[in-house]
Amino acid sequence: MAKKITVPRGTTDILPPEISLWQNIESTARKILDIYNYKEIRTPIFEEVGLFKRSLGQTTEVVNKQLLELASNKEEGFALRPEGTASIVRSYIENSIDRKESLTKFCYIGPMFRGERPQKGRLRQFHQIGAEVIGQDCGSPYIDAEVIALSVNLLKEFGLDNFKLKLNTLGSAQDREKFAAILREQLKPHRSKLSEDSQKRLDQNVFRILDSKDREDQKIIGQLEIGYDHLSTDSREYFGKVKGALDGLGVKYELSPGLVRGLDYYTHTVFEISDTSLGSQDALGAGGRYNSLVKDLGGAQVDAIGFALGIERILLALSDKKTLEQLTLNCYIIALDEVALEKGFELLNQLRAEGISADMSFKLSSMKSLMRSANKSQARYVLILGEEEIKGNVVTLKNFESGQQVQVNLSNIKELAETIKNKRV
Amino acid sequence: MAKKITVPRGTTDILPPEISLWQNIESTARKILDIYNYKEIRTPIFEEVGLFKRSLGQTTEVVNKQLLELASNKEEGFALRPEGTASIVRSYIENSIDRKESLTKFCYIGPMFRGERPQKGRLRQFHQIGAEVIGQDCGSPYIDAEVIALSVNLLKEFGLDNFKLKLNTLGSAQDREKFAAILREQLKPHRSKLSEDSQKRLDQNVFRILDSKDREDQKIIGQLEIGYDHLSTDSREYFGKVKGALDGLGVKYELSPGLVRGLDYYTHTVFEISDTSLGSQDALGAGGRYNSLVKDLGGAQVDAIGFALGIERILLALSDKKTLEQLTLNCYIIALDEVALEKGFELLNQLRAEGISADMSFKLSSMKSLMRSANKSQARYVLILGEEEIKGNVVTLKNFESGQQVQVNLSNIKELAETIKNKRV
Repeated sequence: MAKKITVPRGTTDILPPEISLWQNIESTARKILDIYNYKEIRTPIFEEVGLFKRSLGQTTEVVNKQLLELASNKEEGFALRPEGTASIVRSYIENSIDRKESLTKFCYIGPMFRGERPQKGRLRQFHQIGAEVIGQDCGSPYIDAEVIALSVNLLKEFGLDNFKLKLNTLGSAQDREKFAAILREQLKPHRSKLSEDSQKRLDQNVFRILDSKDREDQKIIGQLEIGYDHLSTDSREYFGKVKGALDGLGVKYELSPGLVRGLDYYTHTVFEISDTSLGSQDALGAGGRYNSLVKDLGGAQVDAIGFALGIERILLALSDKKTLEQLTLNCYIIALDEVALEKGFELLNQLRAEGISADMSFKLSSMKSLMRSANKSQARYVLILGEEEIKGNVVTLKNFESGQQVQVNLSNIKELAETIKNKRV
Repeated sequence: MAKKITVPRGTTDILPPEISLWQNIESTARKILDIYNYKEIRTPIFEEVGLFKRSLGQTTEVVNKQLLELASNKEEGFALRPEGTASIVRSYIENSIDRKESLTKFCYIGPMFRGERPQKGRLRQFHQIGAEVIGQDCGSPYIDAEVIALSVNLLKEFGLDNFKLKLNTLGSAQDREKFAAILREQLKPHRSKLSEDSQKRLDQNVFRILDSKDREDQKIIGQLEIGYDHLSTDSREYFGKVKGALDGLGVKYELSPGLVRGLDYYTHTVFEISDTSLGSQDALGAGGRYNSLVKDLGGAQVDAIGFALGIERILLALSDKKTLEQLTLNCYIIALDEVALEKGFELLNQLRAEGISADMSFKLSSMKSLMRSANKSQARYVLILGEEEIKGNVVTLKNFESGQQVQVNLSNIKELAETIKNKRV
């Protein structure tokens, strides 16, 4: 026997009954996103590598170390998408949506990929629910508040209540530059004590130092004076309105001046939602504004904001609460001989045609063994067809829960279907 | 401005309003699959290359020419899945499902990948709806009939009625060998006239010659005597029962002795469904039995059968019939000044909390321009908030279709929500 092939490292199979948790999350998300008037968009699983370099930033970990690239003879080929925003902006530009709509609200649900060392809560294939608002009319603080409220409401609807919303602003692109300069100035005296990675980042992308997990780095970061000095009056005023709108909606947040997020494209509002029960990988989701990205990728100057929630993280956070709802099968047919099997198969398909979920044992076996299969199927009713039933053109209908059983005539399938649908037995 | 990045060749973006066609297909499929008691399984987007080599066959086009592989330093790495069956069988074995259930019914909906030259109906990322039945109790001809009936019913529920079901049997693994020998014997005298590809296939996998698109090949194939001589008595009897069960269900089929399907793993029943309106790429879906595959991949000797339908092909076949259902937004709020905007945002989120799908204009503009936005949103109602409304704590509710409008008090949001939900205006 050859070596057994297993699921690739850092990926998982989602099987029944666990799949029902995923289906619940997704259908709840679709309902809420519809209420908020966000329309689904689906972009391909892979994109040109250049798209991610130009949007996420050349110096980000995601682009430098974590892209899963497709094999190619060319110097620069394709990579599995590590997140959703870059592809959606690419599609927005390519389809000239800015010329058709002044405000576009997209949502998506799907797999994302990063070549990380797998650990709890970090997979190579993981799944996100996200939304993006893009357009010339997108520059309103109410839209920041809407997007944040939407992500919070999604989590609440999934059944989570133990999470924390951290909020910050990076200001405009110019403010961001000022912020970087302030950070560099404060960090330079400590250069030699910083980790090797952070020393590099000091020149390349100083914000990334704030996300460092290195202990010595964290000590230094803890002593920084991070405030809002770099913000222009306009940026301050804008952020004030965002906070005001959130207050109006009763959405609670915690100001977090050190929150910068790991991607290059953010400007102004950034936020992160974390669950205290999750340990070191505690982020349930995050988002922010990216007012320059559409233009940076060759499109018009239109503002944009979005967020993404991680489905695996949500399921981890739900894990003590989750109850596996079993999908209930309406009925399970058992046939006691070859003739009954033929009749049973006909009945099975007649009931399905009436919209009744139904299955049967396709194998002849002892009554005991067949009842065990019926029981395992978790059907509400078992329908028994034996010699007597065939003679009388009836079926024995048994309610598994109550144990009650009756004989029902087979000349009227619609009535039998109604009996099962309306649980009359 | 740098070069515009476009969607990768052979892939597409699915945008509104087209997305609603996809959502309809998928929700219909989920409903029918649930009625038939098939449970969803999700396997990763990529798998070990070896899985596809061992299951689909070393000499198949899919494996030789069309796998999209991930970049890797190792000799053999990972590839994007070209179809669903191999991964599901891998998962079935890895999770020892044969020890938990004697019959397992899986279904899946998702993207598949082949590095083909893109053309109409052939994409690098395409999407399939499929099902697999696996287990020690899977060897019943009624299960063949169920699987075929399920694929036919799915297509009917999608709105297709112009398709043709071709049916054949390859017999057992031994019968298949005999069939190959008969074909080889008949083809050998024509060896020199066959295309180069087919000459190779004559020794490697003679069945694949039957799928050749080469004109000279097709002439030779047309003169072959393909019958059922290679079938054992058991195989003949089994196929007879499959046909009988299909007749019982009223499923129409056409016997097609030359139908062999392009993958190595098939045994016994094979079928293909094609739509006459589609031209050269006319297959809507196909399937068949693969009684040896689970064992070949290192699992127990259990029988199995499955099928897959192509969503893009279904949409092409539906293209003259499809009507784009617009998702209807319940209401769109327009605010005429800064105070009304704040109040409108509050109202927006109160209505959403009541389950009403709602949106608003986040921008102040002229009444005319705002009404244009409201109209574009295709909302059933527009809710107008101006200076007068704010003073009176009311909102003007206008039915877009009838033009009727009333003022509604804002002190009772639940009543306003009911009015909108039940279309009382």
